[in-house]
Parts: sequence; structure tokens; C-alpha cells
Amino acid sequence: ADNWSGIWEDCNRKIAGGDFRPRTIIEKSKVRALCTTDDPCDDLRFHRRLREEGWPVGVYPTFRPDYYLYIDRQGFADRIGLLEKTCGFRIRNIDDLKAALRERLDFFARHGCFMADHAFVKLIYREAKDYELSKILAAGRNYDQLTEWEVEQYKSALLVFLAGEYARRGWAMQIHVGAIRDNNKMMYDKLGPDTGFDAISDDCYVRALSGLLNAMNDAYGLPKTILYNLNPGDNEMIAAMMGCFQGDSPGKIQFGPAWWFCDQKDGMLRQMTALAALGLFGRFIGMLTDSRSVLSYTRHEYFRRLLCRFIGQWVEDGEYPWERPWLDSLVRGICFDNAWQYFAVPGKQPD
Amino acid sequence: ADNWSGIWEDCNRKIAGGDFRPRTIIEKSKVRALCTTDDPCDDLRFHRRLREEGWPVGVYPTFRPDYYLYIDRQGFADRIGLLEKTCGFRIRNIDDLKAALRERLDFFARHGCFMADHAFVKLIYREAKDYELSKILAAGRNYDQLTEWEVEQYKSALLVFLAGEYARRGWAMQIHVGAIRDNNKMMYDKLGPDTGFDAISDDCYVRALSGLLNAMNDAYGLPKTILYNLNPGDNEMIAAMMGCFQGDSPGKIQFGPAWWFCDQKDGMLRQMTALAALGLFGRFIGMLTDSRSVLSYTRHEYFRRLLCRFIGQWVEDGEYPWERPWLDSLVRGICFDNAWQYFAVPGKQPD
Amino acid sequence: ADNWSGIWEDCNRKIAGGDFRPRTIIEKSKVRALCTTDDPCDDLRFHRRLREEGWPVGVYPTFRPDYYLYIDRQGFADRIGLLEKTCGFRIRNIDDLKAALRERLDFFARHGCFMADHAFVKLIYREAKDYELSKILAAGRNYDQLTEWEVEQYKSALLVFLAGEYARRGWAMQIHVGAIRDNNKMMYDKLGPDTGFDAISDDCYVRALSGLLNAMNDAYGLPKTILYNLNPGDNEMIAAMMGCFQGDSPGKIQFGPAWWFCDQKDGMLRQMTALAALGLFGRFIGMLTDSRSVLSYTRHEYFRRLLCRFIGQWVEDGEYPWERPWLDSLVRGICFDNAWQYFAVPGKQPD
Repeated sequence: ADNWSGIWEDCNRKIAGGDFRPRTIIEKSKVRALCTTDDPCDDLRFHRRLREEGWPVGVYPTFRPDYYLYIDRQGFADRIGLLEKTCGFRIRNIDDLKAALRERLDFFARHGCFMADHAFVKLIYREAKDYELSKILAAGRNYDQLTEWEVEQYKSALLVFLAGEYARRGWAMQIHVGAIRDNNKMMYDKLGPDTGFDAISDDCYVRALSGLLNAMNDAYGLPKTILYNLNPGDNEMIAAMMGCFQGDSPGKIQFGPAWWFCDQKDGMLRQMTALAALGLFGRFIGMLTDSRSVLSYTRHEYFRRLLCRFIGQWVEDGEYPWERPWLDSLVRGICFDNAWQYFAVPGKQPD
Repeated sequence: ADNWSGIWEDCNRKIAGGDFRPRTIIEKSKVRALCTTDDPCDDLRFHRRLREEGWPVGVYPTFRPDYYLYIDRQGFADRIGLLEKTCGFRIRNIDDLKAALRERLDFFARHGCFMADHAFVKLIYREAKDYELSKILAAGRNYDQLTEWEVEQYKSALLVFLAGEYARRGWAMQIHVGAIRDNNKMMYDKLGPDTGFDAISDDCYVRALSGLLNAMNDAYGLPKTILYNLNPGDNEMIAAMMGCFQGDSPGKIQFGPAWWFCDQKDGMLRQMTALAALGLFGRFIGMLTDSRSVLSYTRHEYFRRLLCRFIGQWVEDGEYPWERPWLDSLVRGICFDNAWQYFAVPGKQPD
Repeated sequence: ADNWSGIWEDCNRKIAGGDFRPRTIIEKSKVRALCTTDDPCDDLRFHRRLREEGWPVGVYPTFRPDYYLYIDRQGFADRIGLLEKTCGFRIRNIDDLKAALRERLDFFARHGCFMADHAFVKLIYREAKDYELSKILAAGRNYDQLTEWEVEQYKSALLVFLAGEYARRGWAMQIHVGAIRDNNKMMYDKLGPDTGFDAISDDCYVRALSGLLNAMNDAYGLPKTILYNLNPGDNEMIAAMMGCFQGDSPGKIQFGPAWWFCDQKDGMLRQMTALAALGLFGRFIGMLTDSRSVLSYTRHEYFRRLLCRFIGQWVEDGEYPWERPWLDSLVRGICFDNAWQYFAVPGKQPD
């Protein structure tokens, strides 16, 4: 016990020394670009302030409009209300909603945004006319009971619309599939949503995913897309589906790195194994961590070691040529260069 | 052929020698506690006899009430009739049924029982009032046609009730998920149920499982719970879901060891990999075998060797510290101590 | 660039030299038997011509009647029309259809056929009377709207009928499960079906599969059956289900080798791991490639190396005895002998 309390005080002294402030850690981690996750109505004032300060690390917002799609949840009307207030005009129908979101997309773009993020709950694509969508939107704001079909129509339309907007702006769209949230109702009642009681779903969703990517492709365009699955059993399904929608630019559809429950050794290796077997490993944009948790950056280091071990094993087994320039380019690509190019991060690519 | 028949006779001689009788094998295997699986109406006379004899191995019954939940199967009425006879009173409604089961639970408890066992067939939790349940029970005893909804209401209510009773008594509840039974109808007609024509299901059941654990948690309490899955593809789902319901006591919800089709090398290693990645490996209560098959006890040895190899590989790869006391405690815990403490086996824990 | 164009010309010279014509490659690969995939209405003239030529490699047709089962697709009426023309009689009802297919089965048998091939799209077995099937058939030829139930009735009946015919003739039935096809509608509109936009499904199908094998078993007989799954997550489910329908002849139901997206290192090793854990590895009939792609034959070599490495690892780890004759027989069996005997390939088994 003596021993541990000594360590505790040592740590406090070190933190007080200033060398472990978030910015210092970010700088020490040699971060070149960092993307936050933001509500479409966020005023992004801290992004502006950082830019004004001239902090050398690029900090960019990410557009996460989930709450504006959740027409079947408490709080939806407030969100649309907030969007009205933020944009300064009334949202009377689906066209107004699109205009409002477009305005926010432009606002985010002016702040350097190049990426969006979506949670994907097994969503069946359902076609709908604009007048239907306007009616559904009005009902949703009024918390009228909606059928599952109507909810799916609304979500489908909005996702497909947003995908087109991302594509037009050259943004990447992240889709996170397969979480089942707030499983423990007792704790939910005590602590609220997103408090650590989430798990991995075993839903089947290949048709939903294929249908949605198709609808986007057919309508206003499929943007660069990163698919993250939470159940490692879906790795092969995702890696194969990816291949059906490649095009336009190299590595356009990406099999996202091991996410959340999967971002440990076994999960990372399984994601890489599936990608290397079924996709184009050399185009992989590599690891991701929660930028807001500055201590999670070491996961990049962990990933890079696993990656090198993974590729090194190929070389030792004679399955990949022992050619330093090729290996350098493969590893550097997956660790940094691919992501930099894929996202077209503003500014010059570092050496 | 000569050679083999010699071996055959050798074996017979050895068996006749008395060194290979079940009790001898159990003693030689240094079994400290052994749990049988019993129908709630069993009179447990052999358990009493063993105790009277003073046999040093602890033999405890396990409460397995599946047949009293199968309201949609042939034989249900007979089971309820048997329960009436065993308890000595009429079961006229759901309250009587609960009283009868409670009586049997107490009877089992007096015989040292500390565990229950359930097969789990993808069960959607459905709420029901007591008068509804009484009506469903009466219909079931009469073999009237029940809707799927009613069957689910009955099973949900009974499972949630039993879970509460287990929790109150400090028992552990085992749930076995994912078997699909009696696939070969031709052989079923010849040989009957449970004759070796079972397989692994690929059903999705995360919502069913989450819903049921929740309902238990909310109603009368969730007991210590051990989740066994038959499809190894569900390992991560189970391991993650487990985490949502931990609490009260350390390792309360357990990811059961590789079960049935999975209790081979690959299956055991995959279960341990998932558990170590997503749960708290050091709390794992370890392997299980069919106690009635005295020759299956070697599976514990097989498991222990795989476990040591698994942990040893961590140490060799520098992923776990080479500290003998920690390793000793980890291995001893998973092989014996954790289970002893988890089940609160009566009697003193052996050294 | 200079360098590569030199290689290009070298290759062209080599090909022109005649050593790389399909037949030469087939002969060099020491192929003993080769099975094509053919429409039931094919006149198999090339099979006859090869036989007349006396080419030493056995070339046999495979019966693939998928299009005659797809009653819900465009082109169905034309197929049935083609079948009428080929057989020379009118197909007025389900009995006529069966007679026509029987005629084609006999025709294929006379050309040495011993195998059939089916794609399996999650098919619920539905019973139907003959008069119902005749009505459904007529409606299908007329492109009338059919219910899903009717489509399933038709497909079920035809599959079960065909299985019986295969069983009667001693043929093997291949079932390929788990593809989701033509995912990219935009490319489908440009290029048509089967142009490289297929993927892996995550459908649950254990009940469908069990039900269908059962129906075959119960009705006219279950033939030798090879089950190929596209989603490697289904390996254990398939390997376990297989065991429920074994009988008659050793290794009657086979877990097919890693197929399509899975025929790479990880996929092959996972298939072998599951089979060795849950089935009888020594009966495995080994690898398969697209016979029409003569350059794919190297996949057999790739498979054999992985197989030997897989078994060799067992030996090195002390999990399989280091007995050359046993190992020889195991490896030779899986690489060649098992398949030769399983399919009862016409002609003498080579040394």
C-alpha cells in the first residue's frame, strides 16, 4: 500500500509539472491531424479559436447527425428546433430540413471538415416521396406514433441525401454497424444512456447494408465510405461487400479498423486477416482512436506493432517478398500516408 | 486382430480388478465436488445415501426445470401432474405452480444444491399478468393450442420467477444457448429425442438474451449467471453482453467454458481468447464436464494444459509478466479456486 | 516499363509455343478427371467429342438445374420451353416436368455424369400436393405473380425430387450456400448478372438447411451431399449439421472445401480446423477449383501445401502420431483417393 501511494503522488507531481497536459501529449504523440465529433448545430467556436491561436496540430470537426435521423426517439423535436434556431429559418417540410442540413454541412466545410460519422442500426431502405417525408417529419416533431415503415422511410431518405452531400463535397462517410446499446435497464434508469452498458449485436444486416449502399449509389452518389463492424464474425461479410462498391478513387470503400470491443490484439489481427484475404491490404487507412481520449493514442502504437508483426510473419513464412522498399511503403501507407491521402487532409503531407 | 483382442482382454481384467469402478475413478481424479443434473421432482435419494455413507466427495444436485417450462410440448401435463403428486397439493393457477417449485427449490437446497441449469431457446421476453399466466397454464395442461406469444409469456414469467428464487438462495443459474435438436426426423422416429442428431444453431438471439437478463434484473433479481453458447461465432457477443450485467459479486456473470461441440482445442482456445479480450480472464471459473461420464474428467486435464499453454504464450510473447506468484494464482484460480468460491461449495476449500 | 514489356513478349512467345494451351496445362497438371458444369438441356456434344478423340483425361458433365428451379425469375418460361424442345414433349404439369428432368438425368448419366450442383438460397421447405405444384408451374410459366410460399413450395418439391433422383443414381449433390449476388444495381444495369458484384451473406439458415435435408431424407432419399458455405462464420454450424445426416456410406455428407471468397489461406485453414474438430477429417474429399479456369489448378497445390502444414503442425505438437504410413494415407486420401472413391469416378483408380 505504501508503495502504491508513493506512485500516486509521483504521478500527481508529474502531471502538475505540465508535461502531461492534453496539448503536450498530443504534441509529443506527433499528431498531425485530429478530428473531433460534432453535432451539426455545434458552433465550432473552439475549432476557430485553435486555428486563430495557430496551434500546429490540425484540428477538424466531424459531422455526426445521428440525432436528426432518430425520428423515433425522445428529443427529436428539440433537435429540429435547435436546427431551426441555428440556421435562422423555419423547417416546415423535408426540403427545409435538407436546406438546413446543407447549410450546416457548408458551415462545417468552412471549418475544414472532411468526414461524417453515422451509427447504423440495421436499416431497411424504403423509398418515399417528398410529400410523404414531409408528413412523417411533421408527425415526428409532434411525437405522433410512427410506423416502423415510416421511420425507415425517413431515415433512408435522410441518409441517402446526406451521402450525396458528402460525395459532392469529397467527404468520407463513416458507418458504424452492430452495437446494441443500453442493455441494462436498471442502470439506464440510474445513469442514463451511453454509460457503459452496450454490447455486440448478432443481427443479420447484409441485405440492409447492400440495399442502402445501392440506394446511395443510385441516387445522389456514394461517398468515400468506411464500414466499421462491431461483431468480428461479420469481418468477411463486410470485406466482401466492400468490393461490390469500389470505384472512382482507389480504396474508396474501406473496411474500417477494429472498432470498440474489437480494438484489441485478437480483434485487430482478425480484421487485418480478413482484409488481406478479401480486400486490398495496401490501401488500408489504418487505425483510429478516440481523439478526445489523449491517452488512447498509444493504441496507434499498439496497432503499428501488430501490423508489423503481421506483415513480418508473412515475410518470415515466405508469403511476402523480403523487399525493404515495398515493406516500407506498405507499412508507412497503412500507418499514415493512406489516411492522409484518403481524407485529403488540408495542408502539406508531412515527410 | 490378435493384438487388439489381447488389449480387449487386458482391459477387461483391469476393470474387473476394481480400480476402474466409477467411484475409484472419481477418487483418483481427486474430485472434491460433483454436481448431478436432476428433475425438480427427483427425490434425491441417492444424494442422501451418499451423504449417509460419508463418501468424502461432495455430490450435489442441480435443479433443471426445463420440462416444466416446455408448455408447448407433449408430456407437459404429466410433468405438472408429477409436480402436484410430489408436493402433495393441487396446482390450480400460476401461484400454486410457483409455490410447488419453491417447495422443490427448498428441498434441493436442503440437499446441498447451489446451481440450476436451463436450455435457452431464443426466447423473447413477454410481460403477462398472473391471471393470464394461470389461463395459459390451464390451457397448456389441457394441450389446448397456444399462440407463440402465450408460450413466450409463460416461459418468460417462469424463468424470471426462477431466476429470482435462485438469486435469493445465492444459487448460480446456467443458461445453455444455441442447440438445434433432433434434426434427423427419420432417426427421431426410430430412436426418439436426444439420440445424437443435434447440431449448432445460427439463430440471432442477442435481443432475446439481453431482454431476458434485463427482465430478471428488474423483477426479482438476476442470480449469478453462467452463459454457454454452442456456436463459437457468438463468443464475442456473449462476452460483451456479460459485461452489461456484472455487479454485486466479482465475476457474477460468467462466460461459460467451451460447451459440447466446442469442447475441443480450437473451441476452448477461442472461448479463452474472447474472454481474455472482452472480460476479466482472472475471474473465469474454468472447465466443466459431464459428471455422469466419469471418463470425461480427463477433459479437465486437457483444458488445464491448453490454459497453461495459452497463458504461457502470453508470457513468452512478453504480453504477461513472468511472475510466478501471479501466474500460480491465475492458473489455480481458473482451474479450481474461482469455481469453488463462485459456487460457494459447502465445506472447507481444499489447499 | 522496358523490363515489363520484355516479360510481356516473353510470355506471348511461350504461349505461342503451344506448351501453355489448356489441354497441355491440364495434362501437365496430371488431371485424371475433370467435371464441367452444364445446363440440363446442354447437348454435351463436346463431352462426346472428347471421348471419341480418346483424350486420356476423363471429362464428365455436372448437372446444374438452378434455372429450372428459379420460378420467380425472368427467363423461367424460356427455360421450361427449352426443356420441352430438348425432350420432345409438352410439359403440361409437374409430372411432365419430372419426366423431362428424369430424361435429362439419364442423358447426363449416359455421358458419365456423377454429380449435380445447386445454389441454395435460404429455402424454407414447404409441402405441396402435385396438383398445387402443377398450378404453380403453370403460373410461373405465365409470369403470374406468385406468393413467396408458392415459390418455396415449387422449389422445395423440385429439390426433393431431384435429390431422390441423384440418390437413386448414386450421384453426389453439391449445395452452395450463402452468396448474395448482384449487389451493385448500377453495375448490374450496365453489365448484367454475375459480373463480379457478389458478396457473402450473413443470413441464418440452419433451420432451412436442416428442414430440407430432412425432407429429402424422408421422401425419396438423401444422396451423397457436399455442403459449401460462403460465410466462414458458418463453418461449425455446417460441420455439426453434417453429422446429423451421415449414414449408408462412409463420409456420405461432406463439408465442402473452402469456396470462392474463402479459398485462400485463412479460409482453407478455418475450414480444415472446423472439420477436424467436428467431423471425420480422414474422410475429407479435399479441394475443388473451377475446372474451366485451367490456371486455377495451382490452387490444388496451394491447398495440398496448407494441408501438409496443418497436419505437420499436429505432428510437431504431439497431437498426431509421427507414423509415416498413417500420414501418407491421410494426406493421399484428402488430396486424391477420397474424392476418387466418393464420386466413384468411372475407370480404374490411378496408383
